[in-house]
Amino acid sequence: MGLGRKLLAEFLGTALLLACVVGSGIMGVNLAGGNDAIALLANAGATAGILYVLVTVLGPVSGAHFNPAVTLAMRLRGQLRTHEALAYAGVQVVAAIAGVLLAHAMFDLATLQPGTRVRTGNSQWLSEGVATFGLVLTILLGARHRPAAIPALVASYIFAAYWFTASTSFANPAVTLGRALTQTFSGIRPADVPGFVLAQLAGAVAATLVAGLLAGRRTPIVEPGLPG
Amino acid sequence: MGLGRKLLAEFLGTALLLACVVGSGIMGVNLAGGNDAIALLANAGATAGILYVLVTVLGPVSGAHFNPAVTLAMRLRGQLRTHEALAYAGVQVVAAIAGVLLAHAMFDLATLQPGTRVRTGNSQWLSEGVATFGLVLTILLGARHRPAAIPALVASYIFAAYWFTASTSFANPAVTLGRALTQTFSGIRPADVPGFVLAQLAGAVAATLVAGLLAGRRTPIVEPGLPG
Amino acid sequence: MGLGRKLLAEFLGTALLLACVVGSGIMGVNLAGGNDAIALLANAGATAGILYVLVTVLGPVSGAHFNPAVTLAMRLRGQLRTHEALAYAGVQVVAAIAGVLLAHAMFDLATLQPGTRVRTGNSQWLSEGVATFGLVLTILLGARHRPAAIPALVASYIFAAYWFTASTSFANPAVTLGRALTQTFSGIRPADVPGFVLAQLAGAVAATLVAGLLAGRRTPIVEPGLPG
Amino acid sequence: MGLGRKLLAEFLGTALLLACVVGSGIMGVNLAGGNDAIALLANAGATAGILYVLVTVLGPVSGAHFNPAVTLAMRLRGQLRTHEALAYAGVQVVAAIAGVLLAHAMFDLATLQPGTRVRTGNSQWLSEGVATFGLVLTILLGARHRPAAIPALVASYIFAAYWFTASTSFANPAVTLGRALTQTFSGIRPADVPGFVLAQLAGAVAATLVAGLLAGRRTPIVEPGLPG
Repeated sequence: MGLGRKLLAEFLGTALLLACVVGSGIMGVNLAGGNDAIALLANAGATAGILYVLVTVLGPVSGAHFNPAVTLAMRLRGQLRTHEALAYAGVQVVAAIAGVLLAHAMFDLATLQPGTRVRTGNSQWLSEGVATFGLVLTILLGARHRPAAIPALVASYIFAAYWFTASTSFANPAVTLGRALTQTFSGIRPADVPGFVLAQLAGAVAATLVAGLLAGRRTPIVEPGLPG
Repeated sequence: MGLGRKLLAEFLGTALLLACVVGSGIMGVNLAGGNDAIALLANAGATAGILYVLVTVLGPVSGAHFNPAVTLAMRLRGQLRTHEALAYAGVQVVAAIAGVLLAHAMFDLATLQPGTRVRTGNSQWLSEGVATFGLVLTILLGARHRPAAIPALVASYIFAAYWFTASTSFANPAVTLGRALTQTFSGIRPADVPGFVLAQLAGAVAATLVAGLLAGRRTPIVEPGLPG
Repeated sequence: MGLGRKLLAEFLGTALLLACVVGSGIMGVNLAGGNDAIALLANAGATAGILYVLVTVLGPVSGAHFNPAVTLAMRLRGQLRTHEALAYAGVQVVAAIAGVLLAHAMFDLATLQPGTRVRTGNSQWLSEGVATFGLVLTILLGARHRPAAIPALVASYIFAAYWFTASTSFANPAVTLGRALTQTFSGIRPADVPGFVLAQLAGAVAATLVAGLLAGRRTPIVEPGLPG
Repeated sequence: MGLGRKLLAEFLGTALLLACVVGSGIMGVNLAGGNDAIALLANAGATAGILYVLVTVLGPVSGAHFNPAVTLAMRLRGQLRTHEALAYAGVQVVAAIAGVLLAHAMFDLATLQPGTRVRTGNSQWLSEGVATFGLVLTILLGARHRPAAIPALVASYIFAAYWFTASTSFANPAVTLGRALTQTFSGIRPADVPGFVLAQLAGAVAATLVAGLLAGRRTPIVEPGLPG
């Protein structure tokens, strides 16, 4: 499959993912009458639903990363080359922004509205590290033991992680950047993005190491011999 | 399989789908004490549940379109002939109306009650275009990559789309017409139907084109040589 | 497999189903602070969860009917003999009662408490007829087209039917009798049981006929040559 | 597969399970504005999601017990040796504690906070016995009839059992011990742990016997000839 078609799949998937994350957050808050738990139930359920769909139908085209942290883990495992990984990450970020703007347009909100929600501090960073560790471990072990279940695994994991981490589990640098462009339910202050992204990348690297340990491989990360 | 049996399957499926969409909306509002987010959670969950069932058990008979926008996409892909597509669409509309009347009867409400809920404007039409684009793309890519998952894909997609579009994702011209006959939670003003239907058909055509692009086909839509 | 083991499976499954239907109704009301939509979401979700489990693990033993209306449909289809069908129905009723008593014991409520909730009238009976029609049609078509999906089909259907019928879809004479013994959320007045049961049996027979039509069989119901 | 790798899988799975159970309880209560039914919906949904993931991806490594009651049943069935069972149980308890501490850290709460919630009495013990009976029966019958479905079976069962038992279904001695270390939503008073654990072990043994009966085996529990 050509790289162009893969990048189109990453674009479509990431944009629809963000439109869903942000859009369902807006709808949830609009209807929930101030009860944020009901809004988050809707937000988490909708996100799980769209993830199951997007990973199922676009996975066979691009691998359905939609997430630079996943692309990093896959590069560490030698499943794509450095220039492909960089192209994936670039497209994911552009698509994330496009998805947020689409959500704003569907809900008739101002297109540009930099996030104002404060999300910082040790417990938030720990939450993002744990969230991304779990996501990447789920994908790597799922790919080894039950590849056909990966769409349901990712959807179920993210539903749970919305609730069990204090940050509601962004677990994705492109999603984090996109959500820095909205002042709605799912937003984040742009100044808080770097801390989240660093924690996410650390979680992804840790998961890659642990997945290697569980598989009993000696060189737990990079496969040799694949040119960058 | 004869056309008559296929049309019976389309009738049963579309009527039960509408009975569920409208009925669960009524029940949700009856019990939710004014919290529309809880009513929409019930409405979306029930619709996803019945879609999973109907697409699984009737798909092998008729393809389980239940939706003229899907039938249009399948005609563009050459999967059925023009006269069959027209028969499908006709039966879907009649069945949608029957399903709404059944819901009214089950809840002991006035049989005839033309919708009063205003659903119009650019953001609503964009929502319906996006919703139907996503639905048809899900079906076309699912059919290519994981046909056995189509029931779960359609159900999961619609659950998400109820929340991430501002229109709660009708995404179906027959459903839209049927819902113009109820003043309950899921209703729509008859005058707003044409805008929704046009947006839905545009979304379906766009999805057919994009699915062709992702497959790398040169003639992205109609298969040649199939007589109308 | 011997009849004794099948009856043990029917007993276990029906009793646990009722303990779940009644118990989750009690818990939902206890916690929901008067919002019956939240209680019904919990009740419907828990019922769907336990149905998926019980039909999966007991289906290979007894067919996992847990429901005299399903047993009637299976008898009409010639899948078990008359004396077996009667034994199934008898065990289902006894087990339903045992399940309700177990729920009362787990929640420290009075063991014997005949239902007081009024559920009668044309729209309730129509609801039960539609609910059981849909359930039996789901099972019969699922058995023909996708037997491995029957547990998920039954669970998804019942989740939806809790919401789209005005009666919250008992759809099961043994369940109806059992629920006549509780004054909690899911109860029904004993005097209203016969109307429900008749509507359920009518729905089951109608579904058996329609399933035959969709399969294009000439003698839509009983298979010949199987002694009673 | 070496025992060390199995114990690592049990550690990871049990710790993440507890982090999810306790963390989603905290988040649920934080957002639900006093409506405990909404908090429990989130808690049960998140727990089901993470169980589906952990059993799928770690099951092929260690069997994914995460639960001394399950390990006991598997020992009774002769599927692991006594010293392995003891190692499993020890790691599960340590991991449960680690998971609770991780949840406290993610939500920036005091690390050490012995539980204060009273959970005692006959109806609570009966609930735990029934909950664990159902869980172990689900696993044993699932392993016989549909092993690939075990992750979805465990997740669905626990979602239901959170609602249909008066104790919200701990059903796991390691989980019970871990939850004795938190004063949040999912906590339990340390003094009430022994009653829960005894009821759970009784339920596990009963399920092992009933599963043997349903299989028609003469020696319903221990397989002979496997050295301790």
